[in-house]
Amino acid sequence: MSIDSLNDLFVEELKDLLSAEKQITKALPKMIKAANSPELQSAFEEHLALTEGHIERLEQVFERLGLAPEEKPCKGMAGLIEEGNELLKEAMAPSVKDAALISAAQRVEHYEMAVYGSLRTYAQLLGDIETAQILQSTLDEEGDADRKLTQLAEFSVNLQAAEADMEEVES
Amino acid sequence: MSIDSLNDLFVEELKDLLSAEKQITKALPKMIKAANSPELQSAFEEHLALTEGHIERLEQVFERLGLAPEEKPCKGMAGLIEEGNELLKEAMAPSVKDAALISAAQRVEHYEMAVYGSLRTYAQLLGDIETAQILQSTLDEEGDADRKLTQLAEFSVNLQAAEADMEEVES
Repeated sequence: MSIDSLNDLFVEELKDLLSAEKQITKALPKMIKAANSPELQSAFEEHLALTEGHIERLEQVFERLGLAPEEKPCKGMAGLIEEGNELLKEAMAPSVKDAALISAAQRVEHYEMAVYGSLRTYAQLLGDIETAQILQSTLDEEGDADRKLTQLAEFSVNLQAAEADMEEVES
Repeated sequence: MSIDSLNDLFVEELKDLLSAEKQITKALPKMIKAANSPELQSAFEEHLALTEGHIERLEQVFERLGLAPEEKPCKGMAGLIEEGNELLKEAMAPSVKDAALISAAQRVEHYEMAVYGSLRTYAQLLGDIETAQILQSTLDEEGDADRKLTQLAEFSVNLQAAEADMEEVES
């Protein structure tokens, strides 16, 4: 197929994003299981519920365009998830594993922010303000989720991991 | 190997990031060649120069830690670049290709922002404030580069792409 217009590109990236979101719903249960801190587990559980809502919003956008919600395998997200899975296999102190899980999750969040940002801009330029608003709602939620993870990292998980370093030094 | 401390995780992610930055220096010349708008070409050229500076900063951090600048193949970045390369192969109107290139570049920027943010926080928690500042300098530059790409997309490239849509409707 040939991508001749911004509208074609919008549809292509929408399919890519639907695949990315579906990959995330499959990866998150493993991350919940691997997390040690109850706060981090709750943050991931909350994000799984949010992601299901984001998929519904994308399906809504496909419907607005009169298209079936088709997926195009998203290789970017596949790489991020593969990287996260490798990490989960490594032997790691529990608090350090939590720090690593947060870092992996933030890469996923940032990927989504980049794509939702592009698609929101395309929808605006194409004059479809309602679609732009639907995409902006998800973009805002991804930003919030990212900030929550940073707070968890700074104030809880990483602090415990840094304490593990101190204990190592002291012992 | 076993990752027992936040310091170990810091070093692991540093190696991953060095690999990511090196992958970007190899991908950018192809993106410069593929870009149609002179403004976008300049933006990518500027980013290539910045990336070389970011690699030097990472090497500085390795030196501060008394380590050789080793790479760990970064699968996340490999996925993002593979996705970008596939895009470049598709038949696309020039202005639409520029919009797609910006979208691909912003995914790369966001990946880097996520990783530099995590590493900066780890360095702070490990009490290495100078390293945290070095990483923050790059994080700030990645953020600036991302904002410049958004402006290019909003005010120039996407506008031309949207005009191509209008022409298609009018013709």
